[in-house]
Amino acid sequence: MANKTKEVVLKAKGRIWIETSEGTLIGKGRVELLEKIQTLGSIRQAAIAMKMSYRQAWQQIDEMNTDAKTPLVISNRGGKGGGNAVITEKGERLIKAFHDFTNKFQQFLSKQSTVFIF
Amino acid sequence: MANKTKEVVLKAKGRIWIETSEGTLIGKGRVELLEKIQTLGSIRQAAIAMKMSYRQAWQQIDEMNTDAKTPLVISNRGGKGGGNAVITEKGERLIKAFHDFTNKFQQFLSKQSTVFIF
Repeated sequence: MANKTKEVVLKAKGRIWIETSEGTLIGKGRVELLEKIQTLGSIRQAAIAMKMSYRQAWQQIDEMNTDAKTPLVISNRGGKGGGNAVITEKGERLIKAFHDFTNKFQQFLSKQSTVFIF
Repeated sequence: MANKTKEVVLKAKGRIWIETSEGTLIGKGRVELLEKIQTLGSIRQAAIAMKMSYRQAWQQIDEMNTDAKTPLVISNRGGKGGGNAVITEKGERLIKAFHDFTNKFQQFLSKQSTVFIF
């Protein structure tokens, strides 16, 4: 039978992020960066944990703070041992919103995945 | 008021594709390639329209045909003027499935977009 059905399970996959009118605000990587800052209390330590340069981490935070029009991260330059950094309440809300978005997206994808079978 | 709410509308964005156990089967670009073949009846013409090399187009089709375990595109080497290519019924079904997936994803994203306001 030439047209015999082949069972190939097709999985729906994807990637999501959040934009403002200025462009990308936050995605998987930036959420991870914010969470590392939350845990480690330092942009420098978070950058090391993320295997990125301090400059790169700082630029991403600066962009997020600017585009969100309200600070998500507040950092204080310290003396010996470097400064500390904290995630603001708006930052925490954004982290939570992104996780909610991700969970809903995963649910959406698993529903779609059952549809695609030849 | 330091904590005054800022109105920053956050848009939910994303990109989707379909995988088999072998890896990516199809995404936006490959669907476009299949549709160009459908319209133009030729892999060579479709490749030109997509601004990709014939080799690149052919490789993508070969990968799709292999991973789908059933041909999505059938091509005949022609003589003068090159061969022709047709999308099979399974190919058409996959194109439709991807468009349905895309439409549902757009609906999902627009629902999410309203949620993110600081």
